[in-house]
Amino acid sequence: MGTALRRFWIPVLLSEEVPVPDCEPIAIRILGEDLVAFKDTNGKVGLIDAYCAHRHAHLYWTRNEENGLRCTYHGWKYDTEGNCVDMPNEPAESNFKDKIKITAYPTREWGGVVWAYMGPVEHMPPELPQFEWARVPEEHRIATKRLQESNWAQAVEGGIDSSHVSFLHSSLNQAQTGMITGVPAQAVAPGNASNPSFAQQGRTMALDKSPRFWIGHRDFGFLAAARRNAGEDKYYWRITPYLAPWYTIIPGGGQEGSSLSGHAWVPVDDEHVWTFTFTWNPTRPLTPEEHATHMQGFGVHTEVDKNLPRWDLKISNSYKPIRNMDNNYMVDYEERRKRTFTGIKGISEQDMSIQESMWPIVPRWREHLGTTDKAIIEFRKLVMGMARDLLEGVEPEFPHTPDAYRVRSAAITISRDVPWEEGSAEVVKAKV
Amino acid sequence: MGTALRRFWIPVLLSEEVPVPDCEPIAIRILGEDLVAFKDTNGKVGLIDAYCAHRHAHLYWTRNEENGLRCTYHGWKYDTEGNCVDMPNEPAESNFKDKIKITAYPTREWGGVVWAYMGPVEHMPPELPQFEWARVPEEHRIATKRLQESNWAQAVEGGIDSSHVSFLHSSLNQAQTGMITGVPAQAVAPGNASNPSFAQQGRTMALDKSPRFWIGHRDFGFLAAARRNAGEDKYYWRITPYLAPWYTIIPGGGQEGSSLSGHAWVPVDDEHVWTFTFTWNPTRPLTPEEHATHMQGFGVHTEVDKNLPRWDLKISNSYKPIRNMDNNYMVDYEERRKRTFTGIKGISEQDMSIQESMWPIVPRWREHLGTTDKAIIEFRKLVMGMARDLLEGVEPEFPHTPDAYRVRSAAITISRDVPWEEGSAEVVKAKV
Amino acid sequence: MGTALRRFWIPVLLSEEVPVPDCEPIAIRILGEDLVAFKDTNGKVGLIDAYCAHRHAHLYWTRNEENGLRCTYHGWKYDTEGNCVDMPNEPAESNFKDKIKITAYPTREWGGVVWAYMGPVEHMPPELPQFEWARVPEEHRIATKRLQESNWAQAVEGGIDSSHVSFLHSSLNQAQTGMITGVPAQAVAPGNASNPSFAQQGRTMALDKSPRFWIGHRDFGFLAAARRNAGEDKYYWRITPYLAPWYTIIPGGGQEGSSLSGHAWVPVDDEHVWTFTFTWNPTRPLTPEEHATHMQGFGVHTEVDKNLPRWDLKISNSYKPIRNMDNNYMVDYEERRKRTFTGIKGISEQDMSIQESMWPIVPRWREHLGTTDKAIIEFRKLVMGMARDLLEGVEPEFPHTPDAYRVRSAAITISRDVPWEEGSAEVVKAKV
Repeated sequence: MGTALRRFWIPVLLSEEVPVPDCEPIAIRILGEDLVAFKDTNGKVGLIDAYCAHRHAHLYWTRNEENGLRCTYHGWKYDTEGNCVDMPNEPAESNFKDKIKITAYPTREWGGVVWAYMGPVEHMPPELPQFEWARVPEEHRIATKRLQESNWAQAVEGGIDSSHVSFLHSSLNQAQTGMITGVPAQAVAPGNASNPSFAQQGRTMALDKSPRFWIGHRDFGFLAAARRNAGEDKYYWRITPYLAPWYTIIPGGGQEGSSLSGHAWVPVDDEHVWTFTFTWNPTRPLTPEEHATHMQGFGVHTEVDKNLPRWDLKISNSYKPIRNMDNNYMVDYEERRKRTFTGIKGISEQDMSIQESMWPIVPRWREHLGTTDKAIIEFRKLVMGMARDLLEGVEPEFPHTPDAYRVRSAAITISRDVPWEEGSAEVVKAKV
Repeated sequence: MGTALRRFWIPVLLSEEVPVPDCEPIAIRILGEDLVAFKDTNGKVGLIDAYCAHRHAHLYWTRNEENGLRCTYHGWKYDTEGNCVDMPNEPAESNFKDKIKITAYPTREWGGVVWAYMGPVEHMPPELPQFEWARVPEEHRIATKRLQESNWAQAVEGGIDSSHVSFLHSSLNQAQTGMITGVPAQAVAPGNASNPSFAQQGRTMALDKSPRFWIGHRDFGFLAAARRNAGEDKYYWRITPYLAPWYTIIPGGGQEGSSLSGHAWVPVDDEHVWTFTFTWNPTRPLTPEEHATHMQGFGVHTEVDKNLPRWDLKISNSYKPIRNMDNNYMVDYEERRKRTFTGIKGISEQDMSIQESMWPIVPRWREHLGTTDKAIIEFRKLVMGMARDLLEGVEPEFPHTPDAYRVRSAAITISRDVPWEEGSAEVVKAKV
Repeated sequence: MGTALRRFWIPVLLSEEVPVPDCEPIAIRILGEDLVAFKDTNGKVGLIDAYCAHRHAHLYWTRNEENGLRCTYHGWKYDTEGNCVDMPNEPAESNFKDKIKITAYPTREWGGVVWAYMGPVEHMPPELPQFEWARVPEEHRIATKRLQESNWAQAVEGGIDSSHVSFLHSSLNQAQTGMITGVPAQAVAPGNASNPSFAQQGRTMALDKSPRFWIGHRDFGFLAAARRNAGEDKYYWRITPYLAPWYTIIPGGGQEGSSLSGHAWVPVDDEHVWTFTFTWNPTRPLTPEEHATHMQGFGVHTEVDKNLPRWDLKISNSYKPIRNMDNNYMVDYEERRKRTFTGIKGISEQDMSIQESMWPIVPRWREHLGTTDKAIIEFRKLVMGMARDLLEGVEPEFPHTPDAYRVRSAAITISRDVPWEEGSAEVVKAKV
């Protein structure tokens, strides 16, 4: 599976982690590999082996200076290509440094994220996937991340599971008020809570908790469409795009001026995952109030301690959630009795409380999947198929269809006689 | 051994952990098995598999409502029998829920404790063991617990080891004053410290530190009788009942109005044990002062942090001792030099300092047992024999002799020519 | 390798850890073996098996009284020879105690350190290695230790690696000012920073970062001589003695009144090492200011928390560094940008940041050794050769040449036409 995932461009860092040329380097683990990231003097981001080739000192303890990382042990210096460009402890006439090259991965910086390609160079996709959240101007976007204590796949499975929203993220009197805690960004944006259409969606989800699912295969992965009854002649459709290998977009948006949110789940190793979260508005900058609300952990973004190291994972800046397993996610039992389904603050923490509890890797032989797990089954087929195909020499096509990724989610109420693929066709197109 | 232990009713929780109907659920590990406990709307205690059958979400993150635990992920709901009684994310016409049943164990609530039977139903003893501490009215009893970092067997072995009391729990000038730290409850009950008979016992134990041991086999396990010289013509006998598989009663009581104390050591897993401690007075309610003294950690009960989770063990409420290995049990070296044998506050913490230091599972091949270890040898014979018998199809009888458990300890001084079994016969009978 | 190391007298404790007769015992791990150390009533230091032979209780929880450690469980008492000298829970007529003897190692107290011999008695060297730091009067010496999270060998390799000083311990404008952070004690002794000769050394090291290395084999191990250009007709030589199996002396001293510093790296187990650090002045007592400067972590000594237990390693007093991996060694990035190479306070912490980052055991198959790694290669040859020889029955000679250890380091500037061994011959002799 790792080999298949390495055919894709991978979001490895937030841009904020390497904010300026010659900033501090970052120790990071991606797909079980220990790396350091840095931005060189020219503004190019390097992503190279975490260890100096000389004596295996970790390059987090380096100086980022004059277009390279200089190991603090003996001054060996590496550029963003992994070349050893200086070896000051060797005699001037030595050509030893020319023989030293460490692993380095091509990177690009785009959409608030540093991307890397960690696969064989002959299969490198020329273009990044054209996510709308990456294409909008910077001030239209919030990009955050957190370290989650679970395998990546069960996290993706949470993202494409439209049926859990009626439970995990719901409030207790939702059927009456429509007030929900489980929909993205716009739910908590000032002014939107009273959006009548939005409150209606909340009521609809509370009243019909057993949606029926359809899958529509696409060049980027698939659309998972969940249908709920909405009055006598209409259906409420929540359409979640799954974009291979680990992206999802939360159903929502659609109204003029409304925002969308989505995730990327990038494996740290088998038992940890980087959860990236994006909120973007296609038509306008996000307001300071919207920023503040998200940063305070009210929406799908997570309150984190960015700087705490996790050297057991060789991570210098762990983005560890403030509300985490060790403090029972600061669950408020009074809140659970009176107002919300879980008593846990934050949609992302609600998700973590479940996904981290399922064991680091869910023992899938203990599951009993039902009719609402269609998207999960489909996801497993797709990624396992991709891995199997590759074993037989069949390359995945997803990494090479960047424009297919110009897609949105949908949350629409349409007449019962309109097929969902027809009724949502325009809505699910990215506009930017 | 686990199979043999599952033939008994097991104390799994304090009643205080599931205090009222629809209270918060508890995540707990017993005999290596991860479970959740809850009290349903009707007041019945459920003890079921910790994981939802659907997607393996931990049921600690549930809502306890209307006679069942409802998983916060997709709302599947389980009753105390483990039946899935609601599956709201499936279509109304689905009968999927009828096919879902998770492990559930029969429970009873009695004596300040929730009991469970975790063995094959055809061998379930109809009646609980009739401990005096369970039979007395609630206000006559204190029941507490702690999480201990050791195998259960070496903890039981501490409980039946009457000879360590002359050392681990002693004070330095005990031979003169009789002041001891190592006998139960009544030692620290206001007014009792000056009990002349009690001080005499302390002096006796200080003066004769090499008791001789006898074992008397009984239907509940055995009595371990430790004999010390007490003047020229008398013996001081401390008689400790070991009640299969993991109960002990501390020698003491006997005077009008005095209390007794005992323990149950229930395996969390191979390297952790729930230490339950009971203090009871057969004839009168315990006073607020006695309660306070125990709760402050002066006697055999332990000061704990009830709510700290230990998710590495899948325990939501760990009852972790305040004075523990990581802080060297807050040993006071000055106190050790001047007053008590260990310098550690609390009889239970003194025991932990030893039992947790012996490695999580004592390497018994390194032991050198002596004449005072008779009870320990007997205990090992009994439990190993029980496990071996079961392998050959011979069921243990202990679980089916509940009235045999109506027994007390003794601490008596009698004439040298009276055999201990005769001299203690009345004393060791429970009176309630 | 462990067998070979056990042919040497080993520094196991600081004398301050067993300061007075009948002081508190210490739980310690040396070469993977769990031990307790204590000073008996007569002032003799015992180093015996950590566990009581009776029931495997850890003897840290003992009373150190009347020439022996008395186990708090049942009062068994051991003398410094490991004899069981009292067994109060056995009958007076029993001779059981005469059959009980636990592991005990011969110890000596000398030079601020408790030494132990942990090998076969027939190979015990009669005399301790005659280090100058041990031979000077107590008030001429500072001896400290820390627990380091790495294998011992990569720590020794840091100590004999004279080339890293031009980098890891350097300051940014060193070529101009000569101000360096990476040389020992005297660098930070008040008054010495402006020592012109000393500043000159700093400039020299900054200007020539690729020293050439020579090895001179000696009866104690070897001298590693690093040569740097120093003006047109001179060389600056830094000569580091490596003394088998794990001692080094930092180049320095030599001027009237100046101090020297050195290390011993004693394995706790394969992934932890006790780093002992010594600073001594051959001719005068160290001043209170020098003491204070070292204790505050400005030089080669480390600020530690002496009393924190590490029961995962069976260590009661861990001497854990205050600036450690879990807090990124309190690196100050501003300091790194403006003044010093690493931004980390303390030479020892700078070393730790590298040595602990290389993995607990450096994966040496990933290294690329260069011309400045000669001493490291020589060290590996020597210790591996010693282990291999022993397998063939050839005993190491180093432990039996105690006077060979009367050696110093050197940091001298001499004419280019004088061979280093000749030019340093007098300097590297210990004078005490």
